[in-house]
Amino acid sequence: MIKYPNMKKVKPKKTKDTSYTSNLGMTLESDLDATNTYYLNHDIAIIHKKPTPVQIVNVDYPSRNKAKITEAYYKVPSTTDYNGIYMGRYIDFDAKETKSKTSLPLSNIHPHQVEHLRSVSKHGGIAFLIVHWKYYDEYYYLPFHILDRYWVNQNKKGGRKSIPYSTFQNEAHLIKFSLNPRIDYLEIIRLYYLE
Amino acid sequence: MIKYPNMKKVKPKKTKDTSYTSNLGMTLESDLDATNTYYLNHDIAIIHKKPTPVQIVNVDYPSRNKAKITEAYYKVPSTTDYNGIYMGRYIDFDAKETKSKTSLPLSNIHPHQVEHLRSVSKHGGIAFLIVHWKYYDEYYYLPFHILDRYWVNQNKKGGRKSIPYSTFQNEAHLIKFSLNPRIDYLEIIRLYYLE
Repeated sequence: MIKYPNMKKVKPKKTKDTSYTSNLGMTLESDLDATNTYYLNHDIAIIHKKPTPVQIVNVDYPSRNKAKITEAYYKVPSTTDYNGIYMGRYIDFDAKETKSKTSLPLSNIHPHQVEHLRSVSKHGGIAFLIVHWKYYDEYYYLPFHILDRYWVNQNKKGGRKSIPYSTFQNEAHLIKFSLNPRIDYLEIIRLYYLE
Repeated sequence: MIKYPNMKKVKPKKTKDTSYTSNLGMTLESDLDATNTYYLNHDIAIIHKKPTPVQIVNVDYPSRNKAKITEAYYKVPSTTDYNGIYMGRYIDFDAKETKSKTSLPLSNIHPHQVEHLRSVSKHGGIAFLIVHWKYYDEYYYLPFHILDRYWVNQNKKGGRKSIPYSTFQNEAHLIKFSLNPRIDYLEIIRLYYLE
């Protein structure tokens, strides 16, 4: 048996959403978890959410078999939340959620994430965002190059600080929501980026 | 500016090694961090260590701008520690360290990690271990299929619970250690797996 002497069995307990940096409610995150589990169980793709980065400052060892973290802080992530492999290709994305009816503010996206997705794209990976428009209850696949167009123009004359909903309708891909897999973003990749 | 209202600036502070599950001393981990940073800065590859998975149980909000995690526990990771993209290929590995002169115990490797690397391999990714033999101060690139041969045989008649050092000498690839990049494992991939 593998020993994990410092690990305590913790019953997964629904706490408040702790992923501050990704602006996710539990729903989008858990729907994506369910989707990725479906892909994994059906041997379609191997895509995981990275753990939330935490800076651990203090750990107690009440006994030999336990390690209790008693002081830690959220860290700014240096990459996106999701990556993996599909049909031999490297996949990398982040998930965002907005309540707006009109536009996705670019302030929802961290500069490190944009830089990361840009490199991924350049190195031959498939980089994108999944955006949940809560008002419309729609999920869009936004290819990185469209995000990047708005990103690089935002501080230029005439540039804007958000991506309008109409851009999603006209240039992004609507992802169908179903029971299983819930948010079938790989279908978009298969149809539009791997033929 | 992007706001991270719940994040406190924490000066990275060297604490005791907290990655219990990967059996790493700080040295191998930090040497790999330095290597990956080199790859990133020279635009060679995008490979990151995943954050240590932590189950957060309790968070205090002493003020609007701070979130202090006051109770959390280490979780068993479901994947390996490192992944990314190199020359368009999906890369996935874990790093292990042993003080032994004779063999790497298979108990150093978690069953989830083996399963994960097996899937990655099957889906066209490049899966391997980096093993630091502290006694010899040698770093080896162990392709997944060699690990797997020992793994599947360990409970069979005549199977063994460890991979002998001689297997590393004869079948794995010695990675040269230098100043920069310190542990140049991508050279092995370039020479042996991408031609």
